[in-house]
Amino acid sequence: MKKIKLGVIGTGRIGKVHIATLVQSVPQAEVVAVADVNIAGATEVANGFGISTIYSNYQDVINHPEVEAVVICSPTDTHAQYIIEAAKAGKHIFCEKPVDLSVSVIQGALEAVEKAGVKLMVGFNRRFDPNFLKLKQLVVDGKIGDPHVLKITSRDPAPPPAEYSAVSGGMFMDMTIHDFDMARYMVGSEVTEVYVKSAVLVDPAIGEAGDVDTAVITLTFANGAIGVIDNSRKAVYGYDQRVEIFGSKGMACADNNFPENHRYFAGDGVHSSLPLNFFMDRYLDAYANEMKVFCQAVINDLALPVSGDDGLKSVVIALAAKKSVQENRPVKLSEII
Amino acid sequence: MKKIKLGVIGTGRIGKVHIATLVQSVPQAEVVAVADVNIAGATEVANGFGISTIYSNYQDVINHPEVEAVVICSPTDTHAQYIIEAAKAGKHIFCEKPVDLSVSVIQGALEAVEKAGVKLMVGFNRRFDPNFLKLKQLVVDGKIGDPHVLKITSRDPAPPPAEYSAVSGGMFMDMTIHDFDMARYMVGSEVTEVYVKSAVLVDPAIGEAGDVDTAVITLTFANGAIGVIDNSRKAVYGYDQRVEIFGSKGMACADNNFPENHRYFAGDGVHSSLPLNFFMDRYLDAYANEMKVFCQAVINDLALPVSGDDGLKSVVIALAAKKSVQENRPVKLSEII
Amino acid sequence: MKKIKLGVIGTGRIGKVHIATLVQSVPQAEVVAVADVNIAGATEVANGFGISTIYSNYQDVINHPEVEAVVICSPTDTHAQYIIEAAKAGKHIFCEKPVDLSVSVIQGALEAVEKAGVKLMVGFNRRFDPNFLKLKQLVVDGKIGDPHVLKITSRDPAPPPAEYSAVSGGMFMDMTIHDFDMARYMVGSEVTEVYVKSAVLVDPAIGEAGDVDTAVITLTFANGAIGVIDNSRKAVYGYDQRVEIFGSKGMACADNNFPENHRYFAGDGVHSSLPLNFFMDRYLDAYANEMKVFCQAVINDLALPVSGDDGLKSVVIALAAKKSVQENRPVKLSEII
Amino acid sequence: MKKIKLGVIGTGRIGKVHIATLVQSVPQAEVVAVADVNIAGATEVANGFGISTIYSNYQDVINHPEVEAVVICSPTDTHAQYIIEAAKAGKHIFCEKPVDLSVSVIQGALEAVEKAGVKLMVGFNRRFDPNFLKLKQLVVDGKIGDPHVLKITSRDPAPPPAEYSAVSGGMFMDMTIHDFDMARYMVGSEVTEVYVKSAVLVDPAIGEAGDVDTAVITLTFANGAIGVIDNSRKAVYGYDQRVEIFGSKGMACADNNFPENHRYFAGDGVHSSLPLNFFMDRYLDAYANEMKVFCQAVINDLALPVSGDDGLKSVVIALAAKKSVQENRPVKLSEII
Repeated sequence: MKKIKLGVIGTGRIGKVHIATLVQSVPQAEVVAVADVNIAGATEVANGFGISTIYSNYQDVINHPEVEAVVICSPTDTHAQYIIEAAKAGKHIFCEKPVDLSVSVIQGALEAVEKAGVKLMVGFNRRFDPNFLKLKQLVVDGKIGDPHVLKITSRDPAPPPAEYSAVSGGMFMDMTIHDFDMARYMVGSEVTEVYVKSAVLVDPAIGEAGDVDTAVITLTFANGAIGVIDNSRKAVYGYDQRVEIFGSKGMACADNNFPENHRYFAGDGVHSSLPLNFFMDRYLDAYANEMKVFCQAVINDLALPVSGDDGLKSVVIALAAKKSVQENRPVKLSEII
Repeated sequence: MKKIKLGVIGTGRIGKVHIATLVQSVPQAEVVAVADVNIAGATEVANGFGISTIYSNYQDVINHPEVEAVVICSPTDTHAQYIIEAAKAGKHIFCEKPVDLSVSVIQGALEAVEKAGVKLMVGFNRRFDPNFLKLKQLVVDGKIGDPHVLKITSRDPAPPPAEYSAVSGGMFMDMTIHDFDMARYMVGSEVTEVYVKSAVLVDPAIGEAGDVDTAVITLTFANGAIGVIDNSRKAVYGYDQRVEIFGSKGMACADNNFPENHRYFAGDGVHSSLPLNFFMDRYLDAYANEMKVFCQAVINDLALPVSGDDGLKSVVIALAAKKSVQENRPVKLSEII
Repeated sequence: MKKIKLGVIGTGRIGKVHIATLVQSVPQAEVVAVADVNIAGATEVANGFGISTIYSNYQDVINHPEVEAVVICSPTDTHAQYIIEAAKAGKHIFCEKPVDLSVSVIQGALEAVEKAGVKLMVGFNRRFDPNFLKLKQLVVDGKIGDPHVLKITSRDPAPPPAEYSAVSGGMFMDMTIHDFDMARYMVGSEVTEVYVKSAVLVDPAIGEAGDVDTAVITLTFANGAIGVIDNSRKAVYGYDQRVEIFGSKGMACADNNFPENHRYFAGDGVHSSLPLNFFMDRYLDAYANEMKVFCQAVINDLALPVSGDDGLKSVVIALAAKKSVQENRPVKLSEII
Repeated sequence: MKKIKLGVIGTGRIGKVHIATLVQSVPQAEVVAVADVNIAGATEVANGFGISTIYSNYQDVINHPEVEAVVICSPTDTHAQYIIEAAKAGKHIFCEKPVDLSVSVIQGALEAVEKAGVKLMVGFNRRFDPNFLKLKQLVVDGKIGDPHVLKITSRDPAPPPAEYSAVSGGMFMDMTIHDFDMARYMVGSEVTEVYVKSAVLVDPAIGEAGDVDTAVITLTFANGAIGVIDNSRKAVYGYDQRVEIFGSKGMACADNNFPENHRYFAGDGVHSSLPLNFFMDRYLDAYANEMKVFCQAVINDLALPVSGDDGLKSVVIALAAKKSVQENRPVKLSEII
């Protein structure tokens, strides 16, 4: 079996998920080094998975002679720089989303990648969720016919701290960006226009920080289809992630995942369990599938299923969404880029 | 048991449904006369339900001395006139939707009703569907908390003939009008703004007739909630009618109704039946509940659950929707009325 | 349209259901006379459905010159006698189940029917339930392949008064008899052996009356299939009626029917409504279908889908079930008849 | 964190599952040695999980000075002997089911365990399935009330080779034994009597080998409840594993698990995916939970949730089931032990 040697930059929550997947579920992968400015955290994670090379400086990972690919799990504002440096060092790259909050910065990073001729995959893990994979397959197989209406419901169990909005770029950039990518992926066509009706209904502090917490977003696609995303930062019943695609030949929908599937019939009604409440539970398989696909594609020199351009496009849609909120009008993507 | 004597104007498809309900399921109701310009059709319907007084002229029903309430099931362009005449004759009125396509005409009819002091109920039958009644009850009981997002999916099995668009006022006026009413009913707040993204994806002839067949409609409510309706004139799998309401304390959704609930597990997958395909099957109970409520309210001098103003408001929203399509921008209802 | 004139004997709960169906939903039917020893009750029912001929003596219905078919809804111990008299009078017969509690009495009635050359249908309404019709269709269409295992769950919301057991013949004769018929119908083969494990778990008074309230019943079919019925007199969550058929090519199951299909997601779980709680709600369509089929078959001289022999067979199985309880051993039907 | 060092005997299919779980999902566990007569297979498995000590002789694992507990995954006919030897060596024991096919042999092993004062857990993994855990919790919490009827559906996707029956002890001993354990676990009471109606409907070769492939099994419990298990060796739609428990206060049922939860609405019906088809997919979580519980219990000297007596009891029920088939009568467990 051909193997690939990887270095992971950032050993926080998502870094740990990727390391666990690579070590436990991807036999072709070998994690040879990790780095985090929090060296104590990095050490604990590395020890837990039998990784002996631990750095505080990300450059040591990029420049590690054995490392063939880097997995970038550091904060968003470091992504573009690390991509550029890794590309220059000739390393393949997996980078968490978003690539950056700025179009020109992303473009700079993508140019570096292209110039270096390395592979870059952006971490839109939901494309690898078994539910959404199944829907996509039905689209690809022509079972939906021409797509007419795409619907995505995406609600978080609880909002992040209000101060997080400034760092993250706001709801569209840190949360809806997944839905923007899913929309493009599922319909198989580019978004050309966005209209957003949003509100602050969950927590006034979010509004004071200049962000919104509730939105209904209309997307127009180049192929004529229409999309709608509804977002909330707080669903009291947990994490709510559903997709529906409707077309000329049929409709397919994917419900949430549940921890088990009992039903309890009592005198007062029928009761069952809430959906899986946490994105790491819901998307556990997706994270594993994603990393397997990345490693296999790099090893076998195959095209990656999520490109740098995919990373750019969803940021552009998010920026158009912001503008639509500010001006309460539909915004064409050509106004952004 | 106190009884009410009714006369029915129009014995076409929906008139027949109401007559059947009144005769078979509303013991307090007695249909004493029917009228239709198609006297042969009226006679056949009347005979089938043991009604002996049959007219070709609607005025004979309105002026029939025993008739206490009239049920108007004639074409839309006659509704307002018949309402005015019935009101002047001191008769209570049940009128099918829409009241009219023109705001001023509707206002004229409502003034006549108010002046005469009679009761008027508009036929938004879906309010009486057991699924949606249950959702509304959850809202009223505070189980949803403050409503944040309302979602309505409303798809027809097949489009009407393209030439019908001119007569009916188009998709928003003949089909979505039900959804506009459902939105106001479910959220319990007025719509203040509408944005529509629409397309002609089902049949080019519909577009040539100046109408659309696919739409995603964003509604803004006075209480801060956001609504979204997605419509299609053609779902190959049948009649698709679902509502979801999401709020600060929970979410409730209503699925379609199915003719039965078998599941068949074969080697190639699990298979089950399509939803009820025809509005009369899906809303059979709703039509019956609606007419019972009307009769009981008139007999006992209670407030009617669907007012003339409800009939007006949904037409105003439909007009705003049309304007939004023409100008591709959000339209405030205050621009219409 | 060819019509049939019917007389109904017995205007209690089930008689009223059949009269309503015949009057409202079977255009080919005309109920010309009803009879009940409770003449006041009969009068009220008859008036409610516009039937003018009301008798206290059932023989007046049988001998009514216009009556072509009689519908027997009187107590079980009168069924056989009325069948015999109706047959002698040359009238077709619909009789509620069970025909009688005694094999020889039933055989006597069936002989009279055969001799007279009239048609007899026994009221196993569940065969006409849309769920079970769908399952049967799958069996007939070969979608199940060879049937291997049939499973019926049949639970009542609440037990009848304990003293009812003596009159009714006990749980197997008044409740499980429906399941015995369903088993034969669904598998399409005769039961050859019965084994019952039963208990008194709901109400000791039922045990004191010599009956049981809980049972698991194993059936052996002539074609090699095995069946199992589980019964309870009391499901606190309502009326529970499910069937599953498993075979060499697949499995089909039918769930309960529900009043609506909402789901409510709250912080503490997902909640939905209980199944339809009352047999008349659950089997409303079944009763209507049943009576339509009877009338059409008589009018057009077609074979009836539930024969007198079907009525006999289920009683034989019930008697074998009783014997199995008494002797705690499998009992062959050949021991009974 | 307190850790436990384990040795695994047998590195076939189930041994590999347990090793993977112990290495990847049980941080308290350390697998220090494995053994298999197939030393090549053992070596491949050990290498894959970074285990360096590999033996062909099971005694080397038992006697390994660091091994505190042994996990027995070898063929059934070795279980009892290995248990006895491990117990004598003072090692705790996890043993796959069944312990043995003979009551006296099992009793001998249990005596050795008791005498040595070590812990023994038998591998009834389904007790640790999230669905069944949830049902059991509802029973324990009193939500079901007094159990009245337990139902287990347990069907395999395909039969084992007919010659396997002789080795395995037949369907009751290798397949239904899981259901016998589930029945005792869920009801929380001992089985006192068994009646089986079985057949050979899947493959005549199974019958020729003296076994059956289809069965409906009635269980009587000491607390008065009644149970029913339906088994088939071949469900063309995959692995079918459902449990339902009905009692005085309510009913709970657990459906199968599915790979994802899409629904596809096409013109010809609604379609969805088959249940997880393979026991390792369906019970993946159960295997992991089981091994965690075992390790934690041994480390913290807690009672084990599945005892040696549980292993004995299910074998006794299986033997009674065989006798019931031979004699076509209910068999009391007191006839066996």
